Amino acid sequence: RHIGLKTITALSCLSAKATKGFIIFIQDFNSFVTRTNTCGELRSAHVGQEVTLYGWIQYQRQGLFLVLRDFQGMIQVIIPQDEAHSHVKNLLSNAPVESVVRVTGIVSPRPPGQENPKMPTGDIEVKAETAEILNSCKKLPFEIKDFIKKTEALRMQYRYLDLRSFQLQYNLRLRSRIVMKMREYLCNLHGFVDVETPTLFKRTPGGAKEFLVPSREAGKFYSLPQSPQQFKQLLMVGGLDRYFQVARCYRDEGSRPDRQPEFTQIDIEMSFVDKTGIQKLVEGLLQYSWPKERGSISTPFPSMTYEEALADYGTDKPDTRFGMKIVDIGDFLRRSDIQFVQNALSYPHGTVKAICIPQGVVSDIASSHLLHSVWQCSALGSLRLESADLLEAAGLVLRDPAAFHFLWVVDFPLFLSKEENPTELESAHHPFTAPHPTDTSLLYSDPTKVRSQHYDLVLNGNEVGGGSIRIHNAEQQRFVLEKVLKEDSEVLSHLLEALELGAPPHGGIALGLDRLVSLIVDAPSIRDVIAFPKSFRGRDLMGNAPDYITPEELKPYHIQVSWPLEEKECRVWALGASYHTSSTL
Amino acid sequence: RHIGLKTITALSCLSAKATKGFIIFIQDFNSFVTRTNTCGELRSAHVGQEVTLYGWIQYQRQGLFLVLRDFQGMIQVIIPQDEAHSHVKNLLSNAPVESVVRVTGIVSPRPPGQENPKMPTGDIEVKAETAEILNSCKKLPFEIKDFIKKTEALRMQYRYLDLRSFQLQYNLRLRSRIVMKMREYLCNLHGFVDVETPTLFKRTPGGAKEFLVPSREAGKFYSLPQSPQQFKQLLMVGGLDRYFQVARCYRDEGSRPDRQPEFTQIDIEMSFVDKTGIQKLVEGLLQYSWPKERGSISTPFPSMTYEEALADYGTDKPDTRFGMKIVDIGDFLRRSDIQFVQNALSYPHGTVKAICIPQGVVSDIASSHLLHSVWQCSALGSLRLESADLLEAAGLVLRDPAAFHFLWVVDFPLFLSKEENPTELESAHHPFTAPHPTDTSLLYSDPTKVRSQHYDLVLNGNEVGGGSIRIHNAEQQRFVLEKVLKEDSEVLSHLLEALELGAPPHGGIALGLDRLVSLIVDAPSIRDVIAFPKSFRGRDLMGNAPDYITPEELKPYHIQVSWPLEEKECRVWALGASYHTSSTL
Repeated sequence: RHIGLKTITALSCLSAKATKGFIIFIQDFNSFVTRTNTCGELRSAHVGQEVTLYGWIQYQRQGLFLVLRDFQGMIQVIIPQDEAHSHVKNLLSNAPVESVVRVTGIVSPRPPGQENPKMPTGDIEVKAETAEILNSCKKLPFEIKDFIKKTEALRMQYRYLDLRSFQLQYNLRLRSRIVMKMREYLCNLHGFVDVETPTLFKRTPGGAKEFLVPSREAGKFYSLPQSPQQFKQLLMVGGLDRYFQVARCYRDEGSRPDRQPEFTQIDIEMSFVDKTGIQKLVEGLLQYSWPKERGSISTPFPSMTYEEALADYGTDKPDTRFGMKIVDIGDFLRRSDIQFVQNALSYPHGTVKAICIPQGVVSDIASSHLLHSVWQCSALGSLRLESADLLEAAGLVLRDPAAFHFLWVVDFPLFLSKEENPTELESAHHPFTAPHPTDTSLLYSDPTKVRSQHYDLVLNGNEVGGGSIRIHNAEQQRFVLEKVLKEDSEVLSHLLEALELGAPPHGGIALGLDRLVSLIVDAPSIRDVIAFPKSFRGRDLMGNAPDYITPEELKPYHIQVSWPLEEKECRVWALGASYHTSSTL
Repeated sequence: RHIGLKTITALSCLSAKATKGFIIFIQDFNSFVTRTNTCGELRSAHVGQEVTLYGWIQYQRQGLFLVLRDFQGMIQVIIPQDEAHSHVKNLLSNAPVESVVRVTGIVSPRPPGQENPKMPTGDIEVKAETAEILNSCKKLPFEIKDFIKKTEALRMQYRYLDLRSFQLQYNLRLRSRIVMKMREYLCNLHGFVDVETPTLFKRTPGGAKEFLVPSREAGKFYSLPQSPQQFKQLLMVGGLDRYFQVARCYRDEGSRPDRQPEFTQIDIEMSFVDKTGIQKLVEGLLQYSWPKERGSISTPFPSMTYEEALADYGTDKPDTRFGMKIVDIGDFLRRSDIQFVQNALSYPHGTVKAICIPQGVVSDIASSHLLHSVWQCSALGSLRLESADLLEAAGLVLRDPAAFHFLWVVDFPLFLSKEENPTELESAHHPFTAPHPTDTSLLYSDPTKVRSQHYDLVLNGNEVGGGSIRIHNAEQQRFVLEKVLKEDSEVLSHLLEALELGAPPHGGIALGLDRLVSLIVDAPSIRDVIAFPKSFRGRDLMGNAPDYITPEELKPYHIQVSWPLEEKECRVWALGASYHTSSTL
């Protein structure tokens, strides 16, 4: 799954000639510096030119040649052997691998038969004339080429070495390019305004996953919000009309796998728009910014109701790259004499469902007493994915990694019963989601039956976006907060007041950028598309964060640590004795 | 100084036809929604067209007409008076000001003599056919047009109303446009990669102004860094070559005027670059992104050494829009018999300096015992600015608000004596700044004499950017940290190790976006170019942040509040009695 040198070169070519005919940017990678070329861009067309290159020594052999590497690729450099160049030979022969060097020389064709068709620069080499070691590399903790085999913890500790890999260079550059295209689409083509919203705000109701930031006022804390939701709605009230932001968001989820405490979303909000408008916008956005080398995507994306998704796929984020839909075979089996089937069918709403496995074998049957309970535990949805795993392990290709199946899931319920107390309701998404227009009256009579104007965007079975048309009517918002959710609306008084003072109808969406890009490059984890990710436990293994703080440093914030009892004594002692060795605690 | 309707319209036209001949974006403000036009874009050319508009009622008169406003401007709507349209008349005559309405109607020329040349849409009006009140506005806490006269606290509490003003719409849209142009220049023209770096990191040495974020590990805290300095250097070590980021930064400075706890910088770093390269890059960047309606700026920017700036202007950020340089008149006065002058001159290095005021009067003379003490207290620099204030109050225009004088200030000292203990040294900027190439040997013999490779960008007397060539040699970096600054290098061990493992020479800069944009739009405060700014005391007056948190909510973070003694009893009581009224505490 690794994308090699050729793709990197293709990327740079693509960037230079842009996708839309009338937008032509020529990227100059050599402006403001004294290099004439990047290592990876040299071709036969450069033969005869004197070039100045900067790069890292990939390897060196017998004082005869070396391979110089930069972000664009690799080039073979011939070390001069004549007396007049003994200084250059000396320098280049003795520089350790991964040292940074400047080389000036003449581009020459490789001798016939020595071309390397696997290298984009394989037809040529550079005969070194002068060279300078800009920084000598000390002994590496491991060989760069073996890096991929090392533990992830080691790779994260030496992240700056891992970043030199073609794969991470490709991922980060592609991410930057996709975001830039998204900005062009939103800002330049559709009049959106890039507005930065605060990340030091206050806790939202039920915001248990929000990081706290102590202020210098005793007892008062900022909160790092999970999204700019309130601010983007207030921007619509403020008449901004079309807002977007590549927004840093924060969520303290402890150690859930493949989550990051800080993540990025493409955050969008529009006034005077309906669901269809937002969907068209997002389809156009993804089509415009989709990287050419990943094929093309066709629009409009198919759409499915929440109810259909659960019935056919057992999940609200179906992977539609393959079939194996869940089929209700209750009626078919009603005349069978299988005892457990008859048992299941005898319950009210009891039924039997099955997945048809491509090899022609019905491998498993899951039964349920109540349809409702299947909806909640999603047993058949998991079974479907597990079956796909098994079939793929056996060699069948069900889920083409190069295929991108987008899907809208719509008509979610507006409220769900609370797990801990099913007689109480909570918002399926958030309390600002508007009810489905045809269900509005049900809001006041039977809120459990109300569908919402929420929409999820699903890609290959992953939720990559979600949004809704919002409530813009203050009374409706107050009713939802106070009567349905039984929450104290006082903490949201500023939003309620804003809705009373000329709030336009509005809606929006947020796309999870990390997840989206990781799917586009087929990376196993979102950590592969983030420059400096945190570990599972939320740690920065390179810089060692979070870290201990002296009681003195906590004073301006009027807080102190409540040490767990068993740790208290030894830690207080250790902190007192030596703050600087705290990292070894 | 307010920029009115005409400028807003000019802005939208400018956006539609871009500055470089070969880049043509047509912004479509009406995509994805059912409006046909924005209110502000209608002209005589639209006469006869049926249009659907969405906007806010600016005012309404006698049931005859109203003015509808959106982000692009205002349009006069004629309320129909015939029986067939009585419903429309009824709706529009009774809707309160600032209600949100949809109006469909025909664009018509205004009757001869009733054109309004002050309105860009003043030649026409829309004869309403249908209308809908989308959201009725409750009684406003004040009239929008009087808003500017209200206290800033009230305006910040109702920020979403203030955002409807032409001035704030202009500021935020211009900011968005400038940043987009910067991105085009960096990303599309010069191959920079937009990389997001973490904001949850750990405290840097001496980072007393860094906000803390408690983690779920007892005693361990993240820190919100003041800049991505370490990360951008590590990206260079990682071979990214050219990095930029519109980076959110955090600084806890208590209540310093016109500072924000979170702010934004255009953060840039390049490998294999020198000071001249960075300066050319920034000059090109500002020229490319400079808004046309603010004139043009010429490059290269003039440059001045730190020593010259102090000698001629008494500050390291001189406002070069006007003269009144500081002149040394010590030699001239040596033969005078003024006693205090003779006193001053009798000290070693004693001298007398003066500012020549344009009106021909030497208004004041400041003397000093030691040149060095003048350099530190900058008395004459302040005197020069105060004199300019006085002269401008008297009617003389010294500092043209439409003039933009950029200036590089270079050759800063690398180290300064600590104020609290002058025998110890601290970095003038930060410990990663490289020494001036000609002063490198002094680093080891007399560090106080070493000039740095730091450069500041000054605009009209304001520091709008700063950067440097960085140390890329691990031994030199360790020497600076351990021997000169006497700091524990252990906390920076990851950076030192990175420098040993193939770090390229590199340098960069950060531009203060908030300050830069506020100067471009001539706003009195950076709060005028931030959508949701905090107050002087770091408070969000709209949402009431920071706010109290229950002890229960602090538990997962193993912290508790250390209440100041005098507050403790009443607060603990109040919190216990009623958490939700905490905002009134």
